[in-house]
Amino acid sequence: MKNFNFTITKKSKNGLGRRGVIETPHGNIETPAFIPVGTQAALKGITPDEAKSLNVQIIFANTYHLFLRPGEKVIKKMGGVNKFMNWDRPVITDSGGFQVFSLGEGLAQGVGKIASIFPEEQASKHQSHNEKSKVKITEDGVWFNSHIDGKKIFLTPKKSIQIQKDLGADFILAFDECTSPLAGYDYTKKSLKRTHRWEVESLQTFRKFQTPTLPSRNFNSKLQTQALYGIVQGGAYKDLREESAKFIGNMDFFGIAIGGSLGKSKKDMHRILDWTTPLLPENKPRHLLGIGGVQDIIEGVKRGVDTFDCASPTREARNGSFLTKNGRLNIANAKFKTDKNPIEKNCKCYTCQNYTRAYLRHLFQAKELLAPRLASIHNLHFMTELMKEIRENL
Amino acid sequence: MKNFNFTITKKSKNGLGRRGVIETPHGNIETPAFIPVGTQAALKGITPDEAKSLNVQIIFANTYHLFLRPGEKVIKKMGGVNKFMNWDRPVITDSGGFQVFSLGEGLAQGVGKIASIFPEEQASKHQSHNEKSKVKITEDGVWFNSHIDGKKIFLTPKKSIQIQKDLGADFILAFDECTSPLAGYDYTKKSLKRTHRWEVESLQTFRKFQTPTLPSRNFNSKLQTQALYGIVQGGAYKDLREESAKFIGNMDFFGIAIGGSLGKSKKDMHRILDWTTPLLPENKPRHLLGIGGVQDIIEGVKRGVDTFDCASPTREARNGSFLTKNGRLNIANAKFKTDKNPIEKNCKCYTCQNYTRAYLRHLFQAKELLAPRLASIHNLHFMTELMKEIRENL
Repeated sequence: MKNFNFTITKKSKNGLGRRGVIETPHGNIETPAFIPVGTQAALKGITPDEAKSLNVQIIFANTYHLFLRPGEKVIKKMGGVNKFMNWDRPVITDSGGFQVFSLGEGLAQGVGKIASIFPEEQASKHQSHNEKSKVKITEDGVWFNSHIDGKKIFLTPKKSIQIQKDLGADFILAFDECTSPLAGYDYTKKSLKRTHRWEVESLQTFRKFQTPTLPSRNFNSKLQTQALYGIVQGGAYKDLREESAKFIGNMDFFGIAIGGSLGKSKKDMHRILDWTTPLLPENKPRHLLGIGGVQDIIEGVKRGVDTFDCASPTREARNGSFLTKNGRLNIANAKFKTDKNPIEKNCKCYTCQNYTRAYLRHLFQAKELLAPRLASIHNLHFMTELMKEIRENL
Repeated sequence: MKNFNFTITKKSKNGLGRRGVIETPHGNIETPAFIPVGTQAALKGITPDEAKSLNVQIIFANTYHLFLRPGEKVIKKMGGVNKFMNWDRPVITDSGGFQVFSLGEGLAQGVGKIASIFPEEQASKHQSHNEKSKVKITEDGVWFNSHIDGKKIFLTPKKSIQIQKDLGADFILAFDECTSPLAGYDYTKKSLKRTHRWEVESLQTFRKFQTPTLPSRNFNSKLQTQALYGIVQGGAYKDLREESAKFIGNMDFFGIAIGGSLGKSKKDMHRILDWTTPLLPENKPRHLLGIGGVQDIIEGVKRGVDTFDCASPTREARNGSFLTKNGRLNIANAKFKTDKNPIEKNCKCYTCQNYTRAYLRHLFQAKELLAPRLASIHNLHFMTELMKEIRENL
């Protein structure tokens, strides 16, 4: 008996798309799936009950944020991140590496605040602020300053896995460096070598924690409580992506994430996926990190990606941008002032069933707390419906 | 057949307390009742469905805010404030006067924002910033500057009633001047005379709107869709309060609100009520404006007050202050860091049934949108349970 499993239930006739089920101790995930981001162990303004009613299957939480606040030991003491946030479905945490590179310089100040101005959807996801920042990479790990209190912290593969073991999410990620799209070939190659070494160390640390002779929380259980994903890096360079796909694909990870710079355009991203996924083992679930645009998901699924995470549906919601089948609807537009229609006709979400565009516009103009909540409900419903449709049409 | 009615169902053996039912076109209100404030036609972060499940019977919305944004004509076009906010239970709006005096100077900037620092619970409610502000009172009305765009606006009894007719709440309030607790006897006396004149004008305007020969939205209906409350003023001066109670009590208002400065201490407030309520007609519902402290409500009920409104339960919620039977619990306290208990043992609210103090503390530390929402749920539940208990023990 295994606690974690991945089964492909259907393969697409054209392309590499597949439908499947990931089994976890907290229930099953039907794939392809979109994973909303609950950075600080909370979906912005949405309760776990609401998330369930929106058919959210799994939530992505950020190790970097939870490590800094409230601290992984607090969450461990509270019984792990799922229990802490009262979410009995699966959770995945990242390694903390991405945030170290992108947020180490205090760029996370807007996190969690209503009506913050956020940068263009994906832009920040692909930028390493390594150059200008106080982030310092050594062969052993990364020095960075907390965006909360400026404290100097050294994050290593061991440390990342220890933190993630304490957080206790179902899925955890190996520690890697997320290189900048501006990084040249030589730097990316050097970084990849180091990342692969870090991932080996991540896996070794992960295994140690699972050895019953160690005083781990798995001591009395023969069942795994966590499963580890490796991460394919290599920037926008074909040979590096291929090398990484083979290297990571051959390691004993439960699943494989594709991370780092996905190039400078949609085409770049498609190319990178085209180089990568065919080299990955068929039987392991594949996750594309930080991607959640509708077209990006559709193209990713075609190329054999099983899961996606992105903060954008809830982030856009906070900015009054509603996802619809006809593209984004910006509720600030004056033309909605007395519009009695719901955001989207025939949408079955709670927001569209109960509120007019006029009222939603008013809530955003008035900066009411209800605004981002009702918008997040619509956008998350949109995403889960999109994925359902994708699964059914595979 | 009447659309509005008030019935006293039980009288307290000691004191002036009474239990009753106010009937409205949007359902009944059991009194004594607490009315949460949804300033901008929304309870902070709480949906109408949640408010219902919390047994909220009626919501208080602010004419000043809705007049400035989105504008009363927008709300009229949307079918009135109840429909606009998707709340099918009763709504009461104030006259706008209080906010003109307290917010005319742009003091409302914190409205609706998460984690704003708010002044001490009731303090701002009793201050007129008349002296320092650009608010100018004439015998006909009040000049003030919008806190949103600085625009100069003249509010009169007629204008206030017209706005409130357009907003369409079940209960509306006569236009009055809310004097400062610092105002001397002479000023308060002069102001009271003017206020009484404004209230007569309010009532006349209200009646005109209900005359079927005028093109009003009540044209085809013989049933009233709104009922008007008069307001007793007079500051902390016995003879003025008594004069006002008699004057307003004799007018053809549906209900009577007690407003203005209630003195400088709890004792002052009790005294003012002791002067006022015995002089009011027994058969009209009485509302105490802007008061919502637990002890204040208990003392108010004893003195024959039927309904109370206050922003404090949701405002305190936004600041992480939870109402409990043992007083306030400030969730920021470090001792709650790993506290697995709910906010209050045996509390049946959604928040206490599902979340630990540790998680709620984390949400507030992390400034998560879920924080004020879960806190408001607890505090509103606390208030509706308090009122239920008061009703049952009368």
